[in-house]
Amino acid sequence: MASNATTRDAPPAGTTSCCPLYHEAVELIGRRWTGAIVAVLLGAERPLRFSEIAAAVPQLSDRLLSERVKELEARGVVERTVFPGPPARVEYAPTAMGRSLAPALQELAAWARRWLPDAAGQAS
Amino acid sequence: MASNATTRDAPPAGTTSCCPLYHEAVELIGRRWTGAIVAVLLGAERPLRFSEIAAAVPQLSDRLLSERVKELEARGVVERTVFPGPPARVEYAPTAMGRSLAPALQELAAWARRWLPDAAGQAS
Repeated sequence: MASNATTRDAPPAGTTSCCPLYHEAVELIGRRWTGAIVAVLLGAERPLRFSEIAAAVPQLSDRLLSERVKELEARGVVERTVFPGPPARVEYAPTAMGRSLAPALQELAAWARRWLPDAAGQAS
Repeated sequence: MASNATTRDAPPAGTTSCCPLYHEAVELIGRRWTGAIVAVLLGAERPLRFSEIAAAVPQLSDRLLSERVKELEARGVVERTVFPGPPARVEYAPTAMGRSLAPALQELAAWARRWLPDAAGQAS
């Protein structure tokens, strides 16, 4: 058991130990639906209302969308602005931190188009 | 209820519906530890043995690593080569599909270094 722990102390020669910040980023963006929500906000030409994000990610329940948007706001990726009414209006937009995810997500989208089989029932 | 379904039929003007292939890619790479494993394999100068991947991602249990590597192999991202022994040797390397994830993951790592606070207890 001790020797097993020892083999895990340092990565072997020729390998790189995985960067904790990168790992955190992958898990942040990779949370179920989070990547989709960020892509929709980045692709929009203006801040979006909750119902507009929901319309662009139709498989996602309002409850889960609300949870994910709150997480993204807490992490500083998305900013929420309330315009007092009546009727009050709430809009969501990517922050500078969120906008700077665009190159990574665009690369990932390009990879997906090139390598993932289009099996999502796109009949037409 | 019907009207709620209708508002979700198409994304509103000025927004983009989220691409199903991109969504699939985010969820593939974003699965817990998958991004880390792929990064280790991409960063290595040669194919790695199971124990070498494990050493580079020390928080990950062998059971979960084994599961994730099998998924990546099934998706065509990683290839597994068995060298008959004795002792038999098994090595893992990214396929062409896996190697072409590098730009996306590098962009994500750059974003993480820039934007995520280094709170992972990096004392030194």
